[in-house]
Formats: sequence, C-alpha cells, structure tokens
Amino acid sequence: MPANESALIDHTHSATARSWLDSANTSDDFPVQNLPLGVFSTVGGEPHIGVAIGDQILDLAATSVAALLPESLRSPLTQPTLNDLFARPSSDRRSLRHHLFELLTDRSHQKTIESCLRPAQQCHMHSPARIGDYTDFYAGIHHANNIGLQLRPDNPLLPNYKYVPIGYHGRASSIRVSGAAVVRPNGQRKPLEAPAPEFGPCRRLDYELELGVWIAGDNALGTNVPIDHAVDRIAGFCILNDWSARDLQAWEYQPLGPFLAKNFLTTISPWVITAEAMAPFRIAQPARPAGDPAPLPYLTAAWDQAHGAFAIQFEVLLASAAMRQRQLPPMRLCVGPASNLYWTVAQLIAHHTSNGCNLSAGDLLGTGTISGPSAGSFGSLMETNHGGKTPLTLPSGETRSFLEDGDEVIMRATAAKVGRVAIGFGECRGIVLSRP
Amino acid sequence: MPANESALIDHTHSATARSWLDSANTSDDFPVQNLPLGVFSTVGGEPHIGVAIGDQILDLAATSVAALLPESLRSPLTQPTLNDLFARPSSDRRSLRHHLFELLTDRSHQKTIESCLRPAQQCHMHSPARIGDYTDFYAGIHHANNIGLQLRPDNPLLPNYKYVPIGYHGRASSIRVSGAAVVRPNGQRKPLEAPAPEFGPCRRLDYELELGVWIAGDNALGTNVPIDHAVDRIAGFCILNDWSARDLQAWEYQPLGPFLAKNFLTTISPWVITAEAMAPFRIAQPARPAGDPAPLPYLTAAWDQAHGAFAIQFEVLLASAAMRQRQLPPMRLCVGPASNLYWTVAQLIAHHTSNGCNLSAGDLLGTGTISGPSAGSFGSLMETNHGGKTPLTLPSGETRSFLEDGDEVIMRATAAKVGRVAIGFGECRGIVLSRP
Repeated sequence: MPANESALIDHTHSATARSWLDSANTSDDFPVQNLPLGVFSTVGGEPHIGVAIGDQILDLAATSVAALLPESLRSPLTQPTLNDLFARPSSDRRSLRHHLFELLTDRSHQKTIESCLRPAQQCHMHSPARIGDYTDFYAGIHHANNIGLQLRPDNPLLPNYKYVPIGYHGRASSIRVSGAAVVRPNGQRKPLEAPAPEFGPCRRLDYELELGVWIAGDNALGTNVPIDHAVDRIAGFCILNDWSARDLQAWEYQPLGPFLAKNFLTTISPWVITAEAMAPFRIAQPARPAGDPAPLPYLTAAWDQAHGAFAIQFEVLLASAAMRQRQLPPMRLCVGPASNLYWTVAQLIAHHTSNGCNLSAGDLLGTGTISGPSAGSFGSLMETNHGGKTPLTLPSGETRSFLEDGDEVIMRATAAKVGRVAIGFGECRGIVLSRP
Repeated sequence: MPANESALIDHTHSATARSWLDSANTSDDFPVQNLPLGVFSTVGGEPHIGVAIGDQILDLAATSVAALLPESLRSPLTQPTLNDLFARPSSDRRSLRHHLFELLTDRSHQKTIESCLRPAQQCHMHSPARIGDYTDFYAGIHHANNIGLQLRPDNPLLPNYKYVPIGYHGRASSIRVSGAAVVRPNGQRKPLEAPAPEFGPCRRLDYELELGVWIAGDNALGTNVPIDHAVDRIAGFCILNDWSARDLQAWEYQPLGPFLAKNFLTTISPWVITAEAMAPFRIAQPARPAGDPAPLPYLTAAWDQAHGAFAIQFEVLLASAAMRQRQLPPMRLCVGPASNLYWTVAQLIAHHTSNGCNLSAGDLLGTGTISGPSAGSFGSLMETNHGGKTPLTLPSGETRSFLEDGDEVIMRATAAKVGRVAIGFGECRGIVLSRP
C-alpha cells in the first residue's frame, strides 16, 4: 500500500507535459499523460502490443522500439496479449510508462518512434488479454436499488447488499472488444400471463454500463489478498457493456443467477487505462449514508477509503439505424460518475480472494452497472424506461422500450480532476443485429 | 447424429477383448475397453498426455509410441494438455482409440509399448485441459427438490425448473485434480438470529457429487449447436466435486447466485473417460413423470431421448482423520445412478449455446449434484443431514453435520451394463485442511 496518494504520482502525470506528436496534445482520449496499452494488428499482420498516443498506435513489438525499452520487458511486450506484462510486478509497468513517456516527449528518438507509429484508424483491435476468468460484481448501489424497486417496492435492497460485495462469475469466451456485432440472442421467455415459456429472439435486449478492471499478478489458490495489498493487483481499467436479455433473465435467473441472459456477449473498450495512468484520478470513497453498516474489517483500509475511488465520468449514447441514415447525432441516454459504486475496486479484490480464490493476471472484473439515483443517470434501459413502461423518444421520432435491430450503443468514459489533463478510455460500441 | 446406438459401438468395446498387460484384465477401472486420456508427469518430468491401462500409464508423447500412431495426431498428443486433441473432429479421437486398442491387445509392438508404460502410482496427474470456461448446471432434479424442500416445503421446485436446464458460470482457475488440498474457506456468514454477519472459517463445508463433461470442438460466437449435433461436442467425462460452503452460500447467493461459496475449489477426477469409451453405456433418458411438460423443441431429439443418458453408478465415501488412523475403511455416504439427471448432456449443450454462446474445446460442464429421492442416495451432506439437523455417526463414533478438518471425501463412478465390461472413472479425492 502506498504511503500516500502522491507516492503514485510523478512527472508522467504533469499537466504541462506535451508530446512531439501533435495529435496527442489535442486528443480528448489519448494525451501523453494516458499511454494506454492494447493489442492491435494492421492489415495482414499479427497481433502486437501497442500504446495509444493521439490518433496513432505505437507498435511496442517493433524491433527498433523494443531496443529503446528495458530488456527485461522485451519478452512480455512481444507476446500477442498483455498477460505476461500483467503478471510482472507493478514496478515493471511503471518503468514501461516512464520509458514511453520519455520516448514520446523527448525528441531524441523521434525518427525511430515515428517509423513505428500506425494510424489507429487503420488498425484492428483485439482483446488486450487472454481472459482466464471473468467476474461481474453488482457494486452500483443505485442500480441495485432501481432494479430492486421494480421487483420489491418496499424493500429494494436485499439484506446482504451493504455487507457483501455481491458478484457472480460471467463467461470469458464471449467477451469481445468494441465493434463486435451484437447478435440478438434466442432464448426461453415467459410472459407472466402465459401458461408456459416459448423460445425465440430476445424482446427485451438491454445494455449495462460498467467499469472493467484488468487484474495483475497471481495469488495461489488457498491464499487471499489483504485489502492493503489489493491496489497492486489492478493492472488497469476499461469500459464494459454487460449486454442483457431481460426477458431471458427474468425467467432463468432463479435460483442460481443470470446465465444465458448475459453470456451471449460482453463488450469491452480495447485500451487498458493503466493503474499508473489513473493514479492522479484517485479520490476518496464517498462516505456511506448515515445508518449504513461499516464494512467488515477484511474490507476496510484507511488508504483505500481515502484514495480507493476514481474520478471517472461515463456517458452512454444511442443511435438507431434511422438516425445514422439521417445523420442525426447519437442521443445521450445517461451520464454519471464512478463514485456511484458502493465498493472500491480494492474491496472487490479483497472480497473475491477472501475465501482463497485465486485471481490471475489477465482476469477481468466488471463492477456492476453504474447508475445514479435519478433520471439521466441510469446505466441501463431497464432503469431508464422503468421496466419497459416509459419508452424513450429518439431524435428520429422513433420510440424505444428496449434495443431494436440496428441500434448502436456507444459508451465513453473520461477520468478528470482539477489541475490534471483529463484522459479518456476510448469507446465501447456495438450494433444490434438480428440473428441470421 | 448417429443413425442408431450401434453406430458408435465397435470391436474396441468387445466384452471378450483382453490386453497383453495383465493388470488391465483385472482392473476395475481401466481395462482395455476404457482407454481414458489424461495428463501426467513422472518425477522431474514435463506433463505428457497418457492413457490409463490397468495399473500403468502409457506415455503418448514418447517418440516410439508416437511413431505407431497416426502422424496427424502427433502434434495434439505432444501438447501439455488435451485441448488440441479435443479441438479435432471426433473421428480423430475415435481413430486414436482404435490405434491404442490394437497396440494394447496385439503383441506386435509389445516391447516398444512396454518401454513407455509408467507405473500410475509413481505419476503425478495434472488437469487434462486448460479449462477456458466452467459451467455448473443443476440438472439433478432430486437434489433440486431435496434442497427446495428445506427452503420451500410446499413448493420445492421453482416454476422454471422443468423448462430450463438451470445453470451458472463457475470458476475455472480453482479447478484441481483429485488429491488437491481442500483449504477451508473463510467468508461472511450470518446466522438467522444474528443482527449482522461475521467473517471467519466456513462452518458448514459440504461436497456435491456431479458428473463432469469435457467439451470438444468449438462453435463460433453467435451460433448455436442444434441438439442433433450436440453429441459431437462431448469429448468425455469425469467425476466432479463441487465443494460448497453452505453458510457462505446462504448469505451471499441472492440475487446473483453462488460465488465465494463455490469458487474456492472444484475437484475433478483426472482421467477423461472418452465419449467413445462410453458409447456402450448410453441408455434411454428416463421418461418424465406424468404431468411434467415436454422439453421445448430446441431441447428435443428422438435419438437423444433414446440414447442420451448414461448407465453410470456413483458412490461417495468419507474417512475422518481418526478413521484413517484406526485403519477403519471409509464409510459409504451415498450410491446412485446418473439417470437421476433430468436433462441429458446433449440438452445441456444445446441449451448453453441456444443464445449463441460459444463453447470451446477444453471447457468443462458440471451436471449439478446427482441425488436420488431418498436416504442413501443423497449427493451432498446438506441433504443427508437434512440441513444439519440429523448428524451422521461415523464408524469411529464421531458425528458429522458438515465436513471437519482432516475429513477425506472420496468419489467413485463406474459405467456398467449387462454384457459389457464395466469401466471405471478412477477416483476424485480431497482432504479438508484448516486454513494455515
């Protein structure tokens, strides 16, 4: 655990730092203070690890770039995924950040670096890691409350909610990066009034806005990660869309939780916003409302309470096929901060491993849907439309209870704080297609 | 889908076939009709793929053995896991079986083969595959009913149970082969009468007897596996112990299902009893009780109803530390058949992929706990002891509500049918240890 917040912040976070690459200095997402890692390929090429800078991607597997980086990082940086880099101590990733910052701000090696920049628009993005296990939490308390209100108006939050960081295992094989087609799932659905379920295309297709967390390091099975050490297990962050088939979910989820309602696809933004880049955007975890229980001791650390949350602002936008055709801009459906999470990421990690469960480098966590308490801040359509009762009207005049074929959902996120250069997450997009 | 049952059965299943290796002909588990695949290592050696025969393991990665097998199988058989072999068409695995059968029954290459046999007792077993995703179903209807009776005496089965093959995602990283230590998990538990939960060692540690299913092949995300084709997606079977922390589970599982109550460890028997070896033990799926709904069309196939279940008999035994010290034999806790499953394996696969979810070679499914309707056939202590109300008395005079430190749980399974040589699954064992 760092002694204080500033121990994580250094010259690579300086608000006055500028890259010699012009597009970095005007980039909303990828200024030189960000330096997110990802896996990309050019046409016909193999997947390489790269770093996003402005409108370019620097190829970290290129021989001439590798020669400028620490030799110990050459092997992890020439892999087709970030797993090996995530398995290294955080000091190695910090060292990589420092080297990349120098190479992109100092002109000493500008020619060499320029020769290894690829226009991002011409690159294809891949999953940053081979995801061993994916866990989805439920830490967005307003989401839990909003959904609970629809099911149990008098008692929306279950008794365990404020004690247990509720989570469940999701499907790793069906996680894809931004842009993957959202094929409308088939499944069993049973309207309340119907005598029996029927099988067919989902009619209540929804998105869920979440913060994704990439795991670094490994703990052996049977050992736990104390909350004081959990910060070292965060490799970085992404946006995560936990696509949800509400009609399938309602019928299948008792008693063992969501299954086919979720595992047809999860979309993530392709860039890993590193824990190192996020250091200046750490903020205090909001105080719990009066009357809420204190977290149990294994979930409590003073540093985590003071610095364990993040100043991230999210937004979700929707564009129907008709809107795109008429060149209408996407409609903003919600905006809200990550501080709507009831648990810190360190609490999620400490809880997940508290029983001895082993988390591995490249595992992915979702925080759960991030919603606020009121209209305009809801992270799912289910909340926005009150369970389908109050359809949205789009700028095209169309209405939406749930997602229709051709609808595109766009999620964005930005970490911002006074006195700091804001850094963006890039986008997490997906267009709904009918099943072929 | 095979035209009929006999299309899957050939001379390798002959009841009169004998190996030149004597121990195979007296082996309860591994006669030449079985030929299960696994991954083993000798002291100081690398993991190799092998086949169990009698009390020996034939090293399939040994150069002289590989030279006697089809060249196309050399690459998958020299991997440290069976994933590549499972990714091949089932005809390749059938061809492998035929070659192994010839080599172990015909004496032409006996000397060569003998030089590549390793005494099983001197080998260390590894996970047969790199498990991408693990899914646990709930297809044991008597288990669902027995547990439901404890929670809802008037209405034990939820309304979806007879329509939906209920399942959820489990943890892949914490699956270990037989013999792995069962470290008692810590966790939150809240007795009904307590005002708040506390954190500490699980007090209601349980086992669950399940059939494990290894997945072959891959379906692309967004495509499904019709039930007629599901049989080709089964690579083989194992015994699976879904260790369960009942006190953690009771407090955490609403609304998203079991999480830390299960993901601290899942133990599997190390040998893959291949789909090819199991062909003679296919039986008709038992008729549903009068009044039960027929499965929906996507879960219905005539061949599957006629041949989709398996004649497997399970047993679970318990030995406490005191019993082992006094050399008392393990106590049998239950015995029962796989026909207590309400859904066939093909139905589980067709359902799992019905929404477009992609299953990959090396994925693992658990069927859910296999219990019968009455005492002596319960696949968990929770059922045997009626939620802790009727403790067991062990031969040592000790009593057990739930598992104590030092207890060893031993699971065995045998496929047997009149006129056939029975084949065994080997064992699935684990000893409970206190947390260090």
